[in-house]
Amino acid sequence: MSDPARAGGPVVALCGGVGGAKLADGLARVMCAEDLLVIVNTADDFRHLGLWISPDIDSVLYALAGLSDPQRGWGRRDESWNFMAALRALHGPDWFQLGDADLAMHVERTRRLAAGESLGGVTDALRRALGIAARVVPMSDDPVSTRLLTDAGWLEFQSYFVRHRCRPCVQRIEFAGAAQARAHPAALESLHAGELRAVVICPSNPFVSIEPILALPQLRAALQACAAPVVAVTPIIGGQAIKGPAAKMLRELGCEVGGAGVARRYAGLIDAFVIDQADELPAAIDGVVLHRAATLMLGAAQREQLAREVLALADSLRGA
Amino acid sequence: MSDPARAGGPVVALCGGVGGAKLADGLARVMCAEDLLVIVNTADDFRHLGLWISPDIDSVLYALAGLSDPQRGWGRRDESWNFMAALRALHGPDWFQLGDADLAMHVERTRRLAAGESLGGVTDALRRALGIAARVVPMSDDPVSTRLLTDAGWLEFQSYFVRHRCRPCVQRIEFAGAAQARAHPAALESLHAGELRAVVICPSNPFVSIEPILALPQLRAALQACAAPVVAVTPIIGGQAIKGPAAKMLRELGCEVGGAGVARRYAGLIDAFVIDQADELPAAIDGVVLHRAATLMLGAAQREQLAREVLALADSLRGA
Repeated sequence: MSDPARAGGPVVALCGGVGGAKLADGLARVMCAEDLLVIVNTADDFRHLGLWISPDIDSVLYALAGLSDPQRGWGRRDESWNFMAALRALHGPDWFQLGDADLAMHVERTRRLAAGESLGGVTDALRRALGIAARVVPMSDDPVSTRLLTDAGWLEFQSYFVRHRCRPCVQRIEFAGAAQARAHPAALESLHAGELRAVVICPSNPFVSIEPILALPQLRAALQACAAPVVAVTPIIGGQAIKGPAAKMLRELGCEVGGAGVARRYAGLIDAFVIDQADELPAAIDGVVLHRAATLMLGAAQREQLAREVLALADSLRGA
Repeated sequence: MSDPARAGGPVVALCGGVGGAKLADGLARVMCAEDLLVIVNTADDFRHLGLWISPDIDSVLYALAGLSDPQRGWGRRDESWNFMAALRALHGPDWFQLGDADLAMHVERTRRLAAGESLGGVTDALRRALGIAARVVPMSDDPVSTRLLTDAGWLEFQSYFVRHRCRPCVQRIEFAGAAQARAHPAALESLHAGELRAVVICPSNPFVSIEPILALPQLRAALQACAAPVVAVTPIIGGQAIKGPAAKMLRELGCEVGGAGVARRYAGLIDAFVIDQADELPAAIDGVVLHRAATLMLGAAQREQLAREVLALADSLRGA
């Protein structure tokens, strides 16, 4: 208990898929993991081959369970692809890659949902089975769907992301169902808790990973009313996203292509923003403390280091 | 075209799973495969993990495509089991083994059925994708379910077969839905065709593989009215089933435990019965020509040899 990072009290993290999940894992490693609640974007969820697929929840669970594939950048380590090969031989739809072990998550989730469990209940059962101490909740048990207006017309998220490989130019993004969706009760409760140490917005794509969460009226209001410091971490380093279309979207949607562009989208909701050490500190943003740190997380040590720095930043803002 | 077996005209085979599928494969190998229609039992079909599983259809397709596992005796060759291992780790239902490549059949079948295709249509698409020349049809597009009254109460077929490993003593067998189920149109048409060379009842379990097919009123009537010779092959050798509970069921249901017991169940429907060469010819059965042959099919040569002998027997009965 000599590690000051472990001292602290509950932390809430808002998270999309792979990139954000690395910081969520870092947080779980440097604090009492039971005190961490990760609220995960579910607006990418979709049905495919009759299966309910929650890509961001699975990325977070794999990261927290130590099951992520470090090379490929998505999915499970030690994965095999015999299902996909057989499906392809049957001329089945093969545009979305499903590993053999990964399939078990989708099949079991679909089975439990069909049996009447909530998405939150299923997620909790899966994370317990995987031996994860941190709590992981979907932003909502209700369906929310990201749709993108592009120069190729309106596209569902996975169609844009996988089928079209993020190539179409994005003009507008909508989260169908967000206005009506109820926030997951544990997410709301944690954000309202008086002893909350920090809220961390993980380095996920602001447009399609974090903003769907913020599009839930209850979660946005809870975040605005939250007494704890809210610290966001840049998903952009040197004008590039580590993975995914964040930089391209910033450009297409007329934002500054850099951490500052992301920080400005979060302005009014965050107290501090962590920009990468490789980037220049941008001009001041009203009400946002800007902080530089090493945000590239190639290994566990870097995840932990960034998590410690984010918590220390939050603690300094709280005057702890 | 010097092979007389190839001369002949259309053949219909009635078939359950693994054992029967070997003879279906033998037939496809020694005749013009396009002239073979295999009518497959679907009363073992069940939904599991949200997937529509048709074990006998898949066994037949795997046998005809050369994909059967020769050692294990069921499922696909070169199979991997990473889905099952992951499902088990999630505490999902793991009592029914699903190989990674095998899963593609169930997922694709379920997807197509959900999209409104008939089971026959899906089966045809799968067999074409697998490059199978012989036609394969489910006995019906309508659901029929085998239920067994045992000393452990009523059991669904897969529960009896897999979960209980055929241990309970069987007292009665019912095929729920059979009386109302319509025969697959291609099955009826083939049985009514004037030029039909033979109907072969493959060496499958009479109680739970062949009799569900015969329980469809249209198929039973078509078989009774059929002008072609009907030849059945014993699934019992030396009082034992090669695989599965056929011998145990014969005993429990008060039948003679041997080929003759099976022949007597088919009496009135068949013209000839092939008993294994290891067994004594039983006492005469009214209207049934008894014939001894090597019925154990350990390899392709034996499948072909038995198929040739069955076709020759049929041809001799037809006076061809």
